[in-house]
Amino acid sequence: MDDLEQTRALMAVTPGWQVQAEAAGLDDATVTAILSEAAKFAEGVLAPLNPVADRTGCRLQDGRVATPPGYAGAWLRLGQDGWLSMDLAEGAGGQGLPLTLHAAAAPFFEGAAMAFMMLAGSTRAAAHLLTQTGGAVAAEWVPRLASGDWTATICISEPDAGSDVGRIRTRAEEVEGGWRITGSKIWISFGDHDMADRIGHLLLARTGPASAGTRGLSLFLVPDRTDSGARNGITVTRIEEKMGLHGSPTCALSFAGSEGILLGEAGRGLPQLFRMIELMRLQTACQGLGIAQRALAIARSYASERLQGGPPDAPPVPLGSHPDVRRQLLAIAAPTAVLRALVLELSTLMDGDEGLAGYLLPLAKNFGAETGFQAASGAMQVLGGAGYTREWPVEQLLRDARVIAIYEGTTGMQAQDFLIRRLIRDGGQTLGRFLDRARAGVAACRDEAARDTATAVLDRFDALSRDLLAGAASPELAADGYLRAGWLAVTAWLACRLIEAGSEREGRFALHDLSERMAGAEALCHLPAWV
Amino acid sequence: MDDLEQTRALMAVTPGWQVQAEAAGLDDATVTAILSEAAKFAEGVLAPLNPVADRTGCRLQDGRVATPPGYAGAWLRLGQDGWLSMDLAEGAGGQGLPLTLHAAAAPFFEGAAMAFMMLAGSTRAAAHLLTQTGGAVAAEWVPRLASGDWTATICISEPDAGSDVGRIRTRAEEVEGGWRITGSKIWISFGDHDMADRIGHLLLARTGPASAGTRGLSLFLVPDRTDSGARNGITVTRIEEKMGLHGSPTCALSFAGSEGILLGEAGRGLPQLFRMIELMRLQTACQGLGIAQRALAIARSYASERLQGGPPDAPPVPLGSHPDVRRQLLAIAAPTAVLRALVLELSTLMDGDEGLAGYLLPLAKNFGAETGFQAASGAMQVLGGAGYTREWPVEQLLRDARVIAIYEGTTGMQAQDFLIRRLIRDGGQTLGRFLDRARAGVAACRDEAARDTATAVLDRFDALSRDLLAGAASPELAADGYLRAGWLAVTAWLACRLIEAGSEREGRFALHDLSERMAGAEALCHLPAWV
Repeated sequence: MDDLEQTRALMAVTPGWQVQAEAAGLDDATVTAILSEAAKFAEGVLAPLNPVADRTGCRLQDGRVATPPGYAGAWLRLGQDGWLSMDLAEGAGGQGLPLTLHAAAAPFFEGAAMAFMMLAGSTRAAAHLLTQTGGAVAAEWVPRLASGDWTATICISEPDAGSDVGRIRTRAEEVEGGWRITGSKIWISFGDHDMADRIGHLLLARTGPASAGTRGLSLFLVPDRTDSGARNGITVTRIEEKMGLHGSPTCALSFAGSEGILLGEAGRGLPQLFRMIELMRLQTACQGLGIAQRALAIARSYASERLQGGPPDAPPVPLGSHPDVRRQLLAIAAPTAVLRALVLELSTLMDGDEGLAGYLLPLAKNFGAETGFQAASGAMQVLGGAGYTREWPVEQLLRDARVIAIYEGTTGMQAQDFLIRRLIRDGGQTLGRFLDRARAGVAACRDEAARDTATAVLDRFDALSRDLLAGAASPELAADGYLRAGWLAVTAWLACRLIEAGSEREGRFALHDLSERMAGAEALCHLPAWV
Repeated sequence: MDDLEQTRALMAVTPGWQVQAEAAGLDDATVTAILSEAAKFAEGVLAPLNPVADRTGCRLQDGRVATPPGYAGAWLRLGQDGWLSMDLAEGAGGQGLPLTLHAAAAPFFEGAAMAFMMLAGSTRAAAHLLTQTGGAVAAEWVPRLASGDWTATICISEPDAGSDVGRIRTRAEEVEGGWRITGSKIWISFGDHDMADRIGHLLLARTGPASAGTRGLSLFLVPDRTDSGARNGITVTRIEEKMGLHGSPTCALSFAGSEGILLGEAGRGLPQLFRMIELMRLQTACQGLGIAQRALAIARSYASERLQGGPPDAPPVPLGSHPDVRRQLLAIAAPTAVLRALVLELSTLMDGDEGLAGYLLPLAKNFGAETGFQAASGAMQVLGGAGYTREWPVEQLLRDARVIAIYEGTTGMQAQDFLIRRLIRDGGQTLGRFLDRARAGVAACRDEAARDTATAVLDRFDALSRDLLAGAASPELAADGYLRAGWLAVTAWLACRLIEAGSEREGRFALHDLSERMAGAEALCHLPAWV
């Protein structure tokens, strides 16, 4: 089953999807045609960019960022062909399709050219955010973001404010006719580039006192050029040199009295950003899935073509005929398939059940990251020495994938979110809804052994959660183990769905040692205080 | 406890070490002085080479390899200061010290400049090999390898013979007065360079028919220049472009009728290479340990200096004061300390109990590799975005470390060796001796809880091994799980030694979830046949 077939088969058994497809008037043939086009676009237009961008990188020239050859043309086509705007409303330049359809297509794009797609991620997310905040600014910006004529960034981090957003010092001052922004922002992907006419920075700045923490932050749109076309006081002070993702310029920006447009209510900047952050976290899951599916495809192809080993007096056999290599490939394929099922489930929930979607997002974010990185590393192991060279694309996948667990909220931040916000502060309510949904899915699985394992793992997760709710461990110390336990619970649930969708080997392999892994995660939730 | 203190404390409780130290007339002060000098040499001479070599790389110029600036001078000092020859016999230009002392010093060198030290690894190992094969060639070469005036490589792999050594096609033909070698070899570290006067290639070539497999292979010394100083028909056809280890030129070499000297007996090439391979596998463990200890040191230092988080109305606190960051650091420190204990144990056994040393080598090789890589990745996670940039040395450590699990026998090869050769073909005899030794070590531990956990884990490993000896699973499919089980058994044993040596936190953390991890490894040993 190839990636497209597995995607289609999983969509067919993702409960929310059929409802959304019907509501959108989408029949199977149309969905398949759209996803086939996405895969074709990914291979034909995006994939050729990736190795070139990795080698060329982005350069700061005369104060502006120069992107790799081919980028501007590919961006134009991405917008023109509608891949940025599928799930935006028709009135706003979009096609009014479900988010799930975007999420089903995105891994093909991300696997082909993750660095390039960083611009699509923030531009899309900004269009959705502006749709929510509304008004004249949305009417002006959303259609242009939807077409790719203009692009957008998200500006949160500062040299002394990373995960601790409350320490943001960039200031917004109200003047006659608007706001002026002054300060420094770092880690801004595509903070500048030469691929479109205008860049809008979605930026958190302080409008209240420092002592107010995040409640003193407001959200602004800060264009790189004013309406008159003049530069808006924004300087690119640096492009980061990174281990990978060279095709995505990570900029440090300085704002000196730049004109900004207040979005929504002052002091409500951070909560207003959530829709954008959620969409970008969904993207990280798609990135991990894209990297994983591409790494797997390369490893499978290499294993079928490379001849090695076998009896010395006979011709060598395909690498993939060795049992340990088959095992290695399945050890990549199984979590990749689980992640695919989660991305589809999550994206349907984001259009329907935000509570449950918020519950699954930290899991999708972190295990998208880890699955992608481990798949790239596992594929490299299948290729051996060849995989360590730049002759093969796997080493770039590994370098690119490593950042996913760091940006958009590190593993540590996702773990705190999952345990403290989604479980403890929530009093276990959403946990209960998650377990109901997961157990219903498991109960529908025809495979009795799979059902038994999955049920046992979900029961253990339930019990562990109740323990932690009852204060059985220090939340800060238990958070990482609990995040891992959550992923194992999701794996139990969605492995059963994989079996239903015809990916039996992946589903059963994912379940094989799941109880033992859950026991390990439980142990990590109960670390001694001296740690 | 810093790396040097932990090394000294572990040596004191490594049973074989005291015997060897006495035999060599080494008192504590001398050992400490030697290791302090090693650490100083590593920081002062080697560490500055590493980032430069990573950026500059090695270039093929007019058919010869140009190494990074500073390499030639550092190599001269490495030889002159005696760091290549500590454990060679005094008569052969060495200092007659125990191998363990070399293994205790090596991680400092490897962590400072792993790529540069690749040349030391093969040169040292060749000197030991030639000492064994003896004769005039040893008398000529060993002292010059010991001083670094000449260097050596190991040439095994060919384009169509990687892990399957029996398919080697490079031919040796006997002519009047010697042998002529013709063929292609790949993955030759420092196959050419500009750091010394002469390079000797320790090379496997076919003297018997292809059908004889490895029994048709003989071992040759093939100098890059003949005694008259003329080039010996060897061409560098390529330097590999790799993800990391740029400071180590990985060469493809072509031999065209090159003069070679037969070492030992024809047809016994592979077994004769074993001493060299064993020393190079010990080096891989030291590489992993070196990378891990350096990554940990950087992460600790960053965590103590970088201020982040804490109550928003108070100044930010050191990153390392957050419980999850403490946990992350300990999760790097614990396996690193276990690996250090294993390197010391293994190196004492290599001078005394070769059977047990051979049993531990695949574990040290593979979990050296994995511990180093995971430590680098874990350190990157502590540093966050900074760690992903080239401003910090962690990303180089990660890129460099990834190759260790690939070269000198992949994980898959180590796993087959450990299960099929060291357990099944051995009938469990060495397993029994390993368990006796490990249980004696555990019994001597004062910490009752540690003793109980470790004993239970060793009992499980014992039972699992008996199951596999009895044919309970397909060895090829079980090998990876069994290799992991072996490492957990070693961890159980040596975590107790860590506690004895005063590294209580590392030892206890390593034991915390060990039973659960052993259960996971057991499950992986019993994969269903459809995998």
